Amino acid sequence: MTTSLPASVDPTALQEILDGRWAHVRRDARENLRDPDFLPVYGEAMQEARDRVTRAAATLARSGRVGFGFPKEYGGEDDAGGSVTSVEMLAFVDLSLMVKAGVQWGLFGGALQLLGSKRQHDAYLRDVMSFDLPGCFAMTETGHGSDVQQLRTTCTYDPETQCFDLHTPHQAARKDYIGNAAKDGRMAVVFAQLISRGKNHGVHAWLVPIRDENGNPMPGVTIGDAGPKAGLNGVDNGRLTFDHVTVPRDMLLDRYGQVAEDGTYTSTIENETRRFFTMLGTLVRGRVSVGGSASSATKLALDIAVRYGDVRRQFAAPGEEREIVINDYLVHQRKLLPALATTYALHFAQEELVSTMHDVQTAVHVHGQEIDEHAQRELESRAAGLKVAQTWHATRTIQLCREACGGAGYLQENRLPHLRADTDVFTTFEGDNTVLLQLVAKGLLTGYRDAFGSLEGWGKVGFIADMVRETVLERTAARALIARLVDALPGRDEDDIPMLERGWQLKMFEFREKHALEGAIRRLRKNSTTEGMAPFDMFNDVQDHVLKTAQSHIDRIVLEAFVAGVDRTTDPAAKQLLDTVCDLYALSTIEADKAWFMEHGQLTAARAKLLTGTVNQLIKQLRPHIITLVDAFGIPAEWKAARILEEEADRQEAMAARDAELKAGVGEGTPEGTATDLEVAPAQ
Amino acid sequence: MTTSLPASVDPTALQEILDGRWAHVRRDARENLRDPDFLPVYGEAMQEARDRVTRAAATLARSGRVGFGFPKEYGGEDDAGGSVTSVEMLAFVDLSLMVKAGVQWGLFGGALQLLGSKRQHDAYLRDVMSFDLPGCFAMTETGHGSDVQQLRTTCTYDPETQCFDLHTPHQAARKDYIGNAAKDGRMAVVFAQLISRGKNHGVHAWLVPIRDENGNPMPGVTIGDAGPKAGLNGVDNGRLTFDHVTVPRDMLLDRYGQVAEDGTYTSTIENETRRFFTMLGTLVRGRVSVGGSASSATKLALDIAVRYGDVRRQFAAPGEEREIVINDYLVHQRKLLPALATTYALHFAQEELVSTMHDVQTAVHVHGQEIDEHAQRELESRAAGLKVAQTWHATRTIQLCREACGGAGYLQENRLPHLRADTDVFTTFEGDNTVLLQLVAKGLLTGYRDAFGSLEGWGKVGFIADMVRETVLERTAARALIARLVDALPGRDEDDIPMLERGWQLKMFEFREKHALEGAIRRLRKNSTTEGMAPFDMFNDVQDHVLKTAQSHIDRIVLEAFVAGVDRTTDPAAKQLLDTVCDLYALSTIEADKAWFMEHGQLTAARAKLLTGTVNQLIKQLRPHIITLVDAFGIPAEWKAARILEEEADRQEAMAARDAELKAGVGEGTPEGTATDLEVAPAQ
Repeated sequence: MTTSLPASVDPTALQEILDGRWAHVRRDARENLRDPDFLPVYGEAMQEARDRVTRAAATLARSGRVGFGFPKEYGGEDDAGGSVTSVEMLAFVDLSLMVKAGVQWGLFGGALQLLGSKRQHDAYLRDVMSFDLPGCFAMTETGHGSDVQQLRTTCTYDPETQCFDLHTPHQAARKDYIGNAAKDGRMAVVFAQLISRGKNHGVHAWLVPIRDENGNPMPGVTIGDAGPKAGLNGVDNGRLTFDHVTVPRDMLLDRYGQVAEDGTYTSTIENETRRFFTMLGTLVRGRVSVGGSASSATKLALDIAVRYGDVRRQFAAPGEEREIVINDYLVHQRKLLPALATTYALHFAQEELVSTMHDVQTAVHVHGQEIDEHAQRELESRAAGLKVAQTWHATRTIQLCREACGGAGYLQENRLPHLRADTDVFTTFEGDNTVLLQLVAKGLLTGYRDAFGSLEGWGKVGFIADMVRETVLERTAARALIARLVDALPGRDEDDIPMLERGWQLKMFEFREKHALEGAIRRLRKNSTTEGMAPFDMFNDVQDHVLKTAQSHIDRIVLEAFVAGVDRTTDPAAKQLLDTVCDLYALSTIEADKAWFMEHGQLTAARAKLLTGTVNQLIKQLRPHIITLVDAFGIPAEWKAARILEEEADRQEAMAARDAELKAGVGEGTPEGTATDLEVAPAQ
Repeated sequence: MTTSLPASVDPTALQEILDGRWAHVRRDARENLRDPDFLPVYGEAMQEARDRVTRAAATLARSGRVGFGFPKEYGGEDDAGGSVTSVEMLAFVDLSLMVKAGVQWGLFGGALQLLGSKRQHDAYLRDVMSFDLPGCFAMTETGHGSDVQQLRTTCTYDPETQCFDLHTPHQAARKDYIGNAAKDGRMAVVFAQLISRGKNHGVHAWLVPIRDENGNPMPGVTIGDAGPKAGLNGVDNGRLTFDHVTVPRDMLLDRYGQVAEDGTYTSTIENETRRFFTMLGTLVRGRVSVGGSASSATKLALDIAVRYGDVRRQFAAPGEEREIVINDYLVHQRKLLPALATTYALHFAQEELVSTMHDVQTAVHVHGQEIDEHAQRELESRAAGLKVAQTWHATRTIQLCREACGGAGYLQENRLPHLRADTDVFTTFEGDNTVLLQLVAKGLLTGYRDAFGSLEGWGKVGFIADMVRETVLERTAARALIARLVDALPGRDEDDIPMLERGWQLKMFEFREKHALEGAIRRLRKNSTTEGMAPFDMFNDVQDHVLKTAQSHIDRIVLEAFVAGVDRTTDPAAKQLLDTVCDLYALSTIEADKAWFMEHGQLTAARAKLLTGTVNQLIKQLRPHIITLVDAFGIPAEWKAARILEEEADRQEAMAARDAELKAGVGEGTPEGTATDLEVAPAQ
């Protein structure tokens, strides 16, 4: 629903709603993350970048701002949501520092905290928090990144020595891309196949010292360097190879699986796959942080491109004095504004996710409640889906911002190259996006029957037989409001419902998800009864359709979160503006998939054309507010480090002043002749 | 038309057709561009990269392989097509070196050659060719990149001194992003407003020394450094500011405009805009080289991703011994194969363009014939269009290849980061892609009435009145064949024509272009008669539609070139394979724009679904030939510099061997217990 917008909207009210539940963490970061080591230095070589980020991480530790997620008894805050929010803020400053911090306190520290015992916490947690014990998270192998259940590193128990033998059997089993390993890490949480009494009990994790106090590799440990990367060169990614390294029994992180002195294995979770993915599921915070950090980078890129576009001019309108501001071009607006709208949508979805994650994790890990399996799986599914959405959006949008800033966007001094290169790998680490989409789809197909993360059953005929029979979409936010909006539709001629009616937008998103899901189920069932079709092909044949289902689901939960966010907004002007931005998000998303909606009878050719016209209208309405929309991200000027933001406006003014002089025939260097002869070739 | 493909196709025949008219240049490059300085060194700092590229350029000059485009009388080959082809081959090796060479011999040397007089050629051309005189092309300014007619640098003639006064009035007029300026350049071709006897005659070019033999800036010349960039850090991009620098009259490059001793200006081209764009038009070779180089980078990225995908494995099919090769996943194929098909299409279009450019330029510059205005403008329009298509395709495809290679694609040792970062700016330099599309559209709207490059009349009501009345599509290649194929259609039920029929594909591409063009014309006319609509808005309102017109036109000429290329292929197996690849190009392009075709009644919902199914079928057919398709690019192994290509296959074999040992219960380190107990957690 959009009536005409107020002439201007105070960004403060907008920023308040964006800052959300952990506004105090954001404000604190804005005021206090100001150390010069924190910002990337342009042209710094890899070694300089690594050294700077190590110093910055130590500074961060001393500031006490890294302990949000740790237990209060060790000096933390028991604040999972605060932890993720603080990482998102760090991402505005330097993504290498954000990753370094994420590895140290999110992955390494998080694994110790959530997979280890009190004894291990007492021994190491404070040193991890203070950065006195730098560590890494050694799960990924050269041969296995996505299918980590298939790791090849082994850790074999010998009751005689009461120790494990940690071993890397071949190069594919080498731990690879391990942050904090190539230079700083002294200890690693190492994931390997636990073998005891001749039986393999699946992947578990151990605390393994990798360097001594002098920085030399421990016996049997070989540390390699992954070398320079496309970006994130402040993070020392390394490789770890273990040659029959002795690991004492008490270094097993044994919350979910234990080995007795005699080698007997016990666990409260009998199924190996379920056990492993339950362990991984506790570390969902990492995935949530990565998604949110990608969005921070996106916001900064948009901030730079939008502000530059408001002062940068090129080509004059006939008869006009000055050239046209590039933000006034329709095509330029069509690049920036839908991207900005999607960024807003994802922001609210991320806020919703962090809040849910905080409540779920606090209940279990702080208050000791039983895990609600269904809630946990939905949480993990949503974390995966939003990680996919935010990281692909970052890649696309930051590239678009680079191009929107022309040659200036290619210079490191204007920040965009770093943002682009650093975020590139976010679509791959913490879960390859394509694999994550498949896992999200699997959850939808089975009603979250299995532990999230496992492809258990996938590719088997039995899986198909066990899929859900009814596809019921569960609403995730503002349930009552959304129900009301959607229920207002039936009985009305669909081709007459205004596209700006929120209920219509929601219904389109719901229809697409439901239809895609039903279609995937139908096609899988059909394939399972097709003669001569191998199980692999039954699934492979519909892989595109399966991923489409996941993407449609993610779009829907994002829209619901945006609707809920608008609903929560009390300031009337801010609410109106957000409402229009939400319209643009919904309609540009539908527009991008127009073909699907037309193919499935949801849009006639006429409505499809009207859709594009409506999007253009919304863009026109929002253009005057484009600066307000980036102001509301609240990014301190000191964090932006883009020279064009400091210089372009003045350059344009100086040029305009000189042009005016020439036109008036005044000013130095005016040769003989009439003023008009001296004009630069008149605008055509 | 696709019958089933042969089991395998010899890549040699395929490579032969791809190597085309200048195959001898490609073969020579493959055999001889082998100096260690030529390949990027991973992790090299900016200074090291610049030094390496300077050495490599000198080595290249000594090899004599830089003179293709220069006149025979100075030691060149008068071979414009050979010149572009040699640059395209260099792009496989190192894009910084390709750009450095392009600046020195394409832009700087090209400007001297095509805009200068014989006297200036005698004085400087040989030294340019030998690299004894490094130079730059100083056109772009901080304030003006796209609208170069609006440069603010001035060059004012004083008859008393018989010299010009070259001056930078303010920072926006600073020459910026100038390759070969920050470190090496000793002379620059400087573009500025020529002012004489109180009158501004528009933009012209002068030869201006910027450094003396000791490497110090000449008096009045300030040389700045644009600093580190996202990529291309082997190119020393700099900034030039002139403080009333004296330039002798005989340093004006005066082929198209002359200044007499007394300051009288003369030119054979009276219209200032036409004159300027005629000058620029001679330099079309640069734009053609950039498009082709982007495609070289794309081919290399695909080569790496495709080969890696054929050995990399992840996730096992139930019951299978080994994990699935990732190239066997439908979604992975859907990423790589359509991109490969488009790369083939663009290759043939580029080949066609280079050939046309060679013939047109040879006629004018070597044989001294009159310029055929219409042919020149079509050439420039096509160069612009193919530059846009190839550079955006490169950005999208290289990103997709990086993601397809997962974490390995993020390591500089695997080449993809360099390709991604280096090609990023190709969508901006040599013409911002969005601006170029607008220029292409303008040509279509006016029937190429105006000099290409100028937005003369754009935004004026008079422009609209003067647009073409009839939209006739001119076919550009294989005219008779295409006419025959398209003419086979009328009278048949459109919904029954097989999608694999080439005539149907061509007709769809033609329909879209014609319809978009007619629609743009109609809407501009409508706007011009709308009350209260400002001229800027008349055009801005349809900017998206206008660009759509240009993109549709470009797609059509690309398809025509591919069709012509297939037709030229004599080897039957290669021809069949190319024919199928052409089907995939055509249908995946239509599929990507399904909504448009449905909106305009060219596809029913049912046909749209069939289209997707047909694309999937083509992908299945082509998958077995995916290695052949990259083999045919003929990229020498020594140029690839991607470690995964050397290591991954062996790693996979070692892992498979070890897994087999475990399964059989043999090999060292086998603990007690049955063999099946020792298997890594069985594939689910």
